[in-house]
Amino acid sequence: MVKEKTQNNKAKQTKPKKYSSKAKAKTTAKPQTQKKKSAPKAPKIPLKIISLGGLGEIGKNITVYEYKEDILLVDCGMAFPDEETPGVDIVIPDFTYLIQNQDKIRGLVVTHGHEDHIGAIPYLLKNISVPIYATQLTIGLIEGKLKEHKGLANTKLNVVNPGQTLQFGALSVEFIHVNHSIPDAVAFAIKTPVGVVVHTGDFKIDTTPIDGQVIDLARFGELGKKGVLAMLADSTNAERPGYTMSEKVVGESFQNLFKKAGKNRIIIATFSSNIHRIQQIIDEAVNCGRKVAVSGRSMLNVVSVAAKLGYLKVPDNVLIDIEAIKNYASEQLVIITTGSQGEPLSALHRMAYSDHRNVEIVPNDMIIISATPIPGNEKLVSKVVNELMKRGANVVYEKMYDVHVSGHACQEEIKLLLSLVKPKFYIPVHGEQKHLYKHAMLAQTMGVPSENTVIANIGDVIELTSKTIKVTDTVPSGRVLVDGLGIGDVGGVVLRDRKLLSDDGIIIVTVTIDEVTGEVVSGPEIVSRGFVYVKESEQLIRDVKTVAEDILEYCYVHRIYDINSIKLKLRDGVSKYLYTQTHRSPMVMPIIMEI
Amino acid sequence: MVKEKTQNNKAKQTKPKKYSSKAKAKTTAKPQTQKKKSAPKAPKIPLKIISLGGLGEIGKNITVYEYKEDILLVDCGMAFPDEETPGVDIVIPDFTYLIQNQDKIRGLVVTHGHEDHIGAIPYLLKNISVPIYATQLTIGLIEGKLKEHKGLANTKLNVVNPGQTLQFGALSVEFIHVNHSIPDAVAFAIKTPVGVVVHTGDFKIDTTPIDGQVIDLARFGELGKKGVLAMLADSTNAERPGYTMSEKVVGESFQNLFKKAGKNRIIIATFSSNIHRIQQIIDEAVNCGRKVAVSGRSMLNVVSVAAKLGYLKVPDNVLIDIEAIKNYASEQLVIITTGSQGEPLSALHRMAYSDHRNVEIVPNDMIIISATPIPGNEKLVSKVVNELMKRGANVVYEKMYDVHVSGHACQEEIKLLLSLVKPKFYIPVHGEQKHLYKHAMLAQTMGVPSENTVIANIGDVIELTSKTIKVTDTVPSGRVLVDGLGIGDVGGVVLRDRKLLSDDGIIIVTVTIDEVTGEVVSGPEIVSRGFVYVKESEQLIRDVKTVAEDILEYCYVHRIYDINSIKLKLRDGVSKYLYTQTHRSPMVMPIIMEI
Repeated sequence: MVKEKTQNNKAKQTKPKKYSSKAKAKTTAKPQTQKKKSAPKAPKIPLKIISLGGLGEIGKNITVYEYKEDILLVDCGMAFPDEETPGVDIVIPDFTYLIQNQDKIRGLVVTHGHEDHIGAIPYLLKNISVPIYATQLTIGLIEGKLKEHKGLANTKLNVVNPGQTLQFGALSVEFIHVNHSIPDAVAFAIKTPVGVVVHTGDFKIDTTPIDGQVIDLARFGELGKKGVLAMLADSTNAERPGYTMSEKVVGESFQNLFKKAGKNRIIIATFSSNIHRIQQIIDEAVNCGRKVAVSGRSMLNVVSVAAKLGYLKVPDNVLIDIEAIKNYASEQLVIITTGSQGEPLSALHRMAYSDHRNVEIVPNDMIIISATPIPGNEKLVSKVVNELMKRGANVVYEKMYDVHVSGHACQEEIKLLLSLVKPKFYIPVHGEQKHLYKHAMLAQTMGVPSENTVIANIGDVIELTSKTIKVTDTVPSGRVLVDGLGIGDVGGVVLRDRKLLSDDGIIIVTVTIDEVTGEVVSGPEIVSRGFVYVKESEQLIRDVKTVAEDILEYCYVHRIYDINSIKLKLRDGVSKYLYTQTHRSPMVMPIIMEI
Repeated sequence: MVKEKTQNNKAKQTKPKKYSSKAKAKTTAKPQTQKKKSAPKAPKIPLKIISLGGLGEIGKNITVYEYKEDILLVDCGMAFPDEETPGVDIVIPDFTYLIQNQDKIRGLVVTHGHEDHIGAIPYLLKNISVPIYATQLTIGLIEGKLKEHKGLANTKLNVVNPGQTLQFGALSVEFIHVNHSIPDAVAFAIKTPVGVVVHTGDFKIDTTPIDGQVIDLARFGELGKKGVLAMLADSTNAERPGYTMSEKVVGESFQNLFKKAGKNRIIIATFSSNIHRIQQIIDEAVNCGRKVAVSGRSMLNVVSVAAKLGYLKVPDNVLIDIEAIKNYASEQLVIITTGSQGEPLSALHRMAYSDHRNVEIVPNDMIIISATPIPGNEKLVSKVVNELMKRGANVVYEKMYDVHVSGHACQEEIKLLLSLVKPKFYIPVHGEQKHLYKHAMLAQTMGVPSENTVIANIGDVIELTSKTIKVTDTVPSGRVLVDGLGIGDVGGVVLRDRKLLSDDGIIIVTVTIDEVTGEVVSGPEIVSRGFVYVKESEQLIRDVKTVAEDILEYCYVHRIYDINSIKLKLRDGVSKYLYTQTHRSPMVMPIIMEI
């Protein structure tokens, strides 16, 4: 289905229109009509671009490129649940549109190996079969992920190098190297009959990256010169002025902090996927003659995959097992751990609460949290820092120490890339509404006309021709909740009940009634959970029983036999009584048994 | 019980020791023994300082100063619940120690009118009666608070001016003006038989405050020259380098943004207690010829109290009712609203979700969020910003626009105050462990010896003599949860159940059994909430019924009559079955009725 082509083989794409913008229009002052004449005749069938995730939200990035009978998928990520989805494990995109159009899908290309770009792949593959194309490390991480799910071993995983171009029906995709907080990240130049679309994926511009591979700005420049119809670009840091610092800055901080640690143990928490960060820790450990132990399942996994594939360079006799740390003095040790987000089951969290099998925090341990909290995790991280400090550890977590840099482009980088690619149309992606909006404003300050900028919603069908961009339709989209083995069976009603239950708990009123006479033969029994501590509220529970008895008596006397009517009366009566007495509103659930 | 004294009347306090510090020791190089000789004979009975809240946590600030038979209370605040206390309304201190020692309590002095310093006062007064002393605005806010609770109208509320000194048995308290994000904030100089203790309360140093009243640095300097034994100081911003900007900076930002708003409506969300902020909004509205409407209950309350007491200066015909905004054009309006923290029931939240009775957001409304999210509220605020942007509003919320400044001293301000007061002993308060720790480190860089610095926990009894500081004991302390009318009846078990319920919901198995024969006469009935959407999971529920029937049959056959044994078997069997089928662990609750 797919033919690989080298970068030089760039035939068959239509010649896109030249970059047109307010800024340019002002400087060249050429009338619009002249430009139109110089453009080749545009095909009338539009390209469709549909994001099934990643717009108006952080995570579950997935974009559909559709031209006639061909669909190309870019990324297939998950999102994390929040306080509105209690008890849910992960959130994935709604795949309805893909299932309906599965015959058209020619392939899935993946920009990089982060969960918000690969995490929903197993769930997609449970519905439809599709070959996957990505760079080596990304494929390695996807492979590990598929192993955790049954029946996905037959998926075709194809390693692609940056610079290569693949053909998917009418669409071809060129892989272009970019910098990010995980190695082997790429952007795509998608050549379509209406023009070239650049899809940046997550990126930053790092002129001194750890692996020496600077983002391929020259290639973006070439594409820009030839003409790019549209760009979909990463909005994560679109609110932040300036530049994201180079990963190398973190290495310099590590040098200083390792010196400062003196004879004390060093423990560093970071994202397991940030292999360049881990490389820098290992390098500095080697410099200081320290051994490195790794703690946390995902950290162990990634270090092993990255070392096997050559992305992590570890000299012999540096890595030691976490069990072996007891054989070394504090000054001989660096421990790399998960838990930089304060996650309750992570290795660092266990250390903080004296619950780690191998690591007991001792005074003067130097603990570096080499990450910033993802929005929503601030309090979790604070709690872990507080606990570690209570144990006398020296915890480094503030921004001022430069122990973390972002993986995403700030405003100046976005502007630089935009100035190279010079797309006619601009579509900010990967961000909440506020990020997309700021990003669109930024593009407009660079001369992209506001009518050429689209802030879309997930499910919107953006139709692109060489001359026009518009949202013409919507397809099913949304968030599908995965809870245990259940996919999509947790919906609004269940979530509402979970929230209600967590607010004021539940009161259950059980009664057995003779279905012939309507007489109460047993009960009412009152049971509660999450409402009050029953042992200290016996009188209240007795009073509720009396209220229920009175209602049942009323129903019996007034010959109300209908079970639902009795239930309603019990629910209302008990709820009202409890609110009066306690100003709380637990869920009241009457259960009536008939004999 | 209390005699007012003027500032000049400062008799009866023992002469405290001179400031002693590493830094000083180095420069003066006087031997320690010489100093000891020059000190007056110290009384042997120590002063006790006990924080019942505000250490290792944000909020519920309350400190006990106890000398022999006299107790002085400073502040009595509440804290907000977090994800560990679902459904709880507010958190208050444990008052056990105060109830046990109520005969000793001579008075409650309050530093300022924020909830984390006054919010628990009504709950304290429900237990013990105590006269309250504070500045005018603080008393005004406490008064409003007491009106919301029954039976507290008789409390003696005393207005005190900065500069005044009050006597409480062996302890006297001087009120000293400080800057903060609410007017009329004070610090205390507490004169005790062992020496002077400075209690800063929340403070910042603003040399250009809106009301022109700069923090009384001269008085702190005088106290420092005479000798201060100990200082308890605000740690909130102890992690932040530099200075907190002046409130005036925000006014300048408002000027620019009001210009930028042009002919559009302006909506500004801020903390209702930040009266200087509100004053600046009103001033700029007057400048621009706009009317001001106020939305949100607490905003209306505070504006009314502050205007009545003269803290807010509003020219005639500027304030209009929120109902009247329909009579004005957009360019004639500024709306001041609550909801700067994204609170779900606040006015701004309602506006964002088109649920506000009077304000419908229209494109190009300029909305300024004049606050930063309190840790834990980041996502709430983001959601509101996103919704407002979807409606086309121009939302200003970033730090770069300087639309908010903190009310707390950053490191340079803390250092400045410390250099004036020169306390011998240093006790960081008002902060999580990490704030207290950073604050203690800061004091040590200023020359306070580490052995003279105490990072305490709530309930710790710190004993101070003129020469020594040590933690000698602990008293009951902790957090008491207020939920509806219940105070303290929500404890660990209830919270654990609420969390469990919110994770995977509940399954109730009800059955009626003949108590003589042990036969099942009705049921089992299976009811669930928050687990799965029952209409789509009928088969699963039927299967659970079968599992329960099998267990009941087994019990009957094996003559297991004991209700608790049957319940245990039902709970285990159903739990296991559900986990196998769904990988979820709902709470399973068997209810057995007997007839």
